[in-house]
Amino acid sequence: MSMHADQQSEYLAFAGRLADAASAVTLPYFRAPLSVVDKGTARFDPVTVADREAELAMRALIRSTYPAHGILGEEEQRITGTDPHHWVLDPIDGTRAFITGLPLWGTLIALNDGQRPVLGVMDQPFTRERFSGDRERAWLNGNPLQVRPCAALSEATLLCTTPDMFESGEQWDAFQRVARAARMQRYGGDCYGYCMVAAGQVDAVVEAGLQPYDVQALIPIVEGAGGIMTSWTGGDPQHGGAVVACGDARVHAEILRLLNSPG
Amino acid sequence: MSMHADQQSEYLAFAGRLADAASAVTLPYFRAPLSVVDKGTARFDPVTVADREAELAMRALIRSTYPAHGILGEEEQRITGTDPHHWVLDPIDGTRAFITGLPLWGTLIALNDGQRPVLGVMDQPFTRERFSGDRERAWLNGNPLQVRPCAALSEATLLCTTPDMFESGEQWDAFQRVARAARMQRYGGDCYGYCMVAAGQVDAVVEAGLQPYDVQALIPIVEGAGGIMTSWTGGDPQHGGAVVACGDARVHAEILRLLNSPG
Repeated sequence: MSMHADQQSEYLAFAGRLADAASAVTLPYFRAPLSVVDKGTARFDPVTVADREAELAMRALIRSTYPAHGILGEEEQRITGTDPHHWVLDPIDGTRAFITGLPLWGTLIALNDGQRPVLGVMDQPFTRERFSGDRERAWLNGNPLQVRPCAALSEATLLCTTPDMFESGEQWDAFQRVARAARMQRYGGDCYGYCMVAAGQVDAVVEAGLQPYDVQALIPIVEGAGGIMTSWTGGDPQHGGAVVACGDARVHAEILRLLNSPG
Repeated sequence: MSMHADQQSEYLAFAGRLADAASAVTLPYFRAPLSVVDKGTARFDPVTVADREAELAMRALIRSTYPAHGILGEEEQRITGTDPHHWVLDPIDGTRAFITGLPLWGTLIALNDGQRPVLGVMDQPFTRERFSGDRERAWLNGNPLQVRPCAALSEATLLCTTPDMFESGEQWDAFQRVARAARMQRYGGDCYGYCMVAAGQVDAVVEAGLQPYDVQALIPIVEGAGGIMTSWTGGDPQHGGAVVACGDARVHAEILRLLNSPG
């Protein structure tokens, strides 16, 4: 299932070029006055000019370099390629962080081989941090990342972007069971939280309401650092929805038990 | 009431030296494996070695430079000086951010003239951002900061560190009235949120359960950028407790009305 090493390095280098192209667009908009367009959904869901322009810049680069590859992005229509490989893009994950000036947003880039995401990049251009992974290894600016051990949820730190992301009272109750059992829980983070799991700074992220482009880049990073990332029921997380990422399998097992035992 | 300009510049430069001394201690500990000591309170309240050592470094510098000044810090005993001026220190505001690897914590340094905080510094050494203010002006790394106009709460973005900070059901209900009326609300930020108000990136911060050393450095920054910072009842915010910071007085007035009109 693994790509040939040369081709893998080529794709990873190309993902870095995509991140460069995106940051050239996003960074000048960060903390600049900008008009925020509401998508028209009930929940406030800001989409910035930066978001759209950065996706277009990445799409242009993919079309010219790998014309056979497909593209799934947050902002524009899906492109189905003649090759099963497709790029999964979220130009600005953490739009709320972006529009409030907080450097916790990131550009998410994944390559999916048709079965699963095989490499991922999370780029934070303001702090100049580029996280990457290929399911077997993970790096921050080229330095290897490794999750930390954590024996039990009672010793674990837990991140979650916002209580607004839970889509039902049941989901919220399930999250609360986990949060109460953790040593410490903090809101805020978006993609940055998953990268902190990979970096051995955080033990778990439990979230819901996610899109495929929110998670696909993060899976190869978390797994590459030795972590585990699944749906709340232990399944494949690549389609988004309700997701758990942990550094230690013992904490992951405990969280899954709590999520799936109502009352 | 205002200090002589030369003395003011001297104190501001000295506050910068304090921030340098603190960051020399804190930055090497950030994202390094470290043992977190629980203060023994009911709520999880991490105190790191970095926190203690950074405060000691700042205290030593104050004692040798301004031996007559008092010191109020988070970690060590209060020192009453022979001069009414006293330094108010929080070596790591946002300890939860610090121990989860998120670059949203900061070192807070205020100089209080015995009546009120007259200058403040918030230093974030990982992102290399130093916010400062003297109630009349405010800067980020030497560049002037200015709040942004916002006509109404329905157009405002609102930050708050965590829902855990509210100390009663009434406080939580009051915060919820404000959050529901805002355009967008996001958790997470600590001192960084107030600096984003000063920088014109965020319209309001509404928080509670704060200590004097959590807020004193931020008042001269928010006010220096043209903002307004009070208690929830419109009083002097320097003693902490429940605090509101806004860029625009119209939003501030609206928030105070909602906070103080139960039901």
